[in-house]
Amino acid sequence: MEFDIIARYFEPLGRNIQAPDLAIGDDGALWTPPAQSQCVVVTDTLVADVHFFAHADPYAIAWKALAVNLSDLAAMGAAPAFYSLALTLPNFDQAWLTRFAQGLDACAQYHAKLMSNALNQPVTLPLVGGDTTRGPLCITVSAQGWLPQGTALLRSGARVGDDIYVSGQIGEAGLGLSLARENPHWIQQNFHHNLSSLPSQQQQALLRLQQPCARVDLGFELRSLAHAAIDISDGLLADLQHILQASQCGAELEPVEVSQAVTDWTQGDELKALQAGDDYELCFTAAVSQRQAVQNLAEQFNLELRRIGKISANKELRYCGKPLALQQAKGYQHF
Amino acid sequence: MEFDIIARYFEPLGRNIQAPDLAIGDDGALWTPPAQSQCVVVTDTLVADVHFFAHADPYAIAWKALAVNLSDLAAMGAAPAFYSLALTLPNFDQAWLTRFAQGLDACAQYHAKLMSNALNQPVTLPLVGGDTTRGPLCITVSAQGWLPQGTALLRSGARVGDDIYVSGQIGEAGLGLSLARENPHWIQQNFHHNLSSLPSQQQQALLRLQQPCARVDLGFELRSLAHAAIDISDGLLADLQHILQASQCGAELEPVEVSQAVTDWTQGDELKALQAGDDYELCFTAAVSQRQAVQNLAEQFNLELRRIGKISANKELRYCGKPLALQQAKGYQHF
Repeated sequence: MEFDIIARYFEPLGRNIQAPDLAIGDDGALWTPPAQSQCVVVTDTLVADVHFFAHADPYAIAWKALAVNLSDLAAMGAAPAFYSLALTLPNFDQAWLTRFAQGLDACAQYHAKLMSNALNQPVTLPLVGGDTTRGPLCITVSAQGWLPQGTALLRSGARVGDDIYVSGQIGEAGLGLSLARENPHWIQQNFHHNLSSLPSQQQQALLRLQQPCARVDLGFELRSLAHAAIDISDGLLADLQHILQASQCGAELEPVEVSQAVTDWTQGDELKALQAGDDYELCFTAAVSQRQAVQNLAEQFNLELRRIGKISANKELRYCGKPLALQQAKGYQHF
Repeated sequence: MEFDIIARYFEPLGRNIQAPDLAIGDDGALWTPPAQSQCVVVTDTLVADVHFFAHADPYAIAWKALAVNLSDLAAMGAAPAFYSLALTLPNFDQAWLTRFAQGLDACAQYHAKLMSNALNQPVTLPLVGGDTTRGPLCITVSAQGWLPQGTALLRSGARVGDDIYVSGQIGEAGLGLSLARENPHWIQQNFHHNLSSLPSQQQQALLRLQQPCARVDLGFELRSLAHAAIDISDGLLADLQHILQASQCGAELEPVEVSQAVTDWTQGDELKALQAGDDYELCFTAAVSQRQAVQNLAEQFNLELRRIGKISANKELRYCGKPLALQQAKGYQHF
């Protein structure tokens, strides 16, 4: 089974690799890193009915499995270069695999185009290998990117006095999860068709949950102006706490504006949106002197880059002047 | 759960990474490839009760999960540099995780030492990241190595007239699998203690199944003298067929000598040992003019490098003069 699946569904996703590199078909893949670069390596596993709904459209399952990894690369400031896929499947379902491969390919091409625009040169994002096994549905993607040596965006770089920013809209994926639980059929096969009859705010929230876009172009640009960055996968508060712990500092947060649909969903519980996961936006800190540069980036990418607070010296996370317990951040699980 | 597991069991396995590189603790890992090198990337998934016995000593499960990836690097001629781990666990079992981490660490250190000797400089093999999730037991390791640009050993390089070699002993893991099926308690917790009361041939076979050693040092040296290589994970015949297909040629095989214990197990069916998987030896081809160089390597590594046949022009695989069906090779599954 394995060789047929790889040849039919996955080899085509490696065809855009550029010689002398090599994707699927040997014991390993070959990749030539740019001179004077560092590699950035990330891995994320999605388990059926833990991290995604098993009945969801395989197009969206595949998209998300790749996108969450690209989001980790974005948070380091790395330009994505290639990815590998370890796919464990309970059985061989041709229709499922066809949609899955389409979603993977679409996600790779979407983010390659973002990077082509940012780098002003053609970028490909090939699937270079992996493994296909039989077992309970589980997807592990490893992605790799590169950046000029010594320029990585780390969690540990925040400085007292820095502004804290978050990109995009927070809480959308949390709203999407709530909608998907109440209406399981909306996210199944023909996801995009199902969406088309819904109000645009619900479409938006479900797309953010099922088919997130990683801020790879923003992350790459942030290397020259941000001090620290992380992606919002576990919820804004939990992920900001990772920055605070790594940078040995605290933060004063102001209220974070969210959409009307998210406000309706949280019923005025402001923290609910800040604790919801899966938004895959970037939270970063930068010197006050960079405010204009950040605003320029927001215009360049046509993306909200919201200033939400400041880094402080005492090791507390305060929200609207009140301390929040600086708990050990917990991984976010859907179920 | 996730952060505790990573901090307690897995962060220590990344501590031997060398600055300015970075292992566990940020959104991704950082690695600086040697100048003028190519990266080699491999991924293998082991599913419980498909690729390994779920009741086996976790030390051996972890060892094998890493070693099978290092074997793929060896087959490309790459020096291993680091690895990542995606571990899906049904529950948190402290004793299990402790043994698992010990096995992973021991395997990394064993192979790092092989490469330190081969390169004559200190080599570390850190765990640089991954993911820990809850679900049915499943382990995906991605490993990465490097080699000087343009020197990779490919499956497609075999030339007509080449000698065909295989390293080490064939069929040992197949015998080990047969023993483990008949005596499930031999491979459970305290695997090494259980082994100690068995005859040495059985010990050897069970070790080969449960705790294989990847020929990373041999693979790295073979770059300068072999034309093509592959590792024997799916069985010698199936894997040789991959070389023949990629190189558009055939092979004439002679009988392959196996141990007395393997002969007893196969009851004289010579092909049984050549079709058994999981040996993780290297099969490679080299010009006749390299025979002395190959023999020198065998002495250097104190390892049998057995000449088992020749590459031929017609696209047949012949064994002792008789054609074997050149079937589409199938993945090897234990169960």
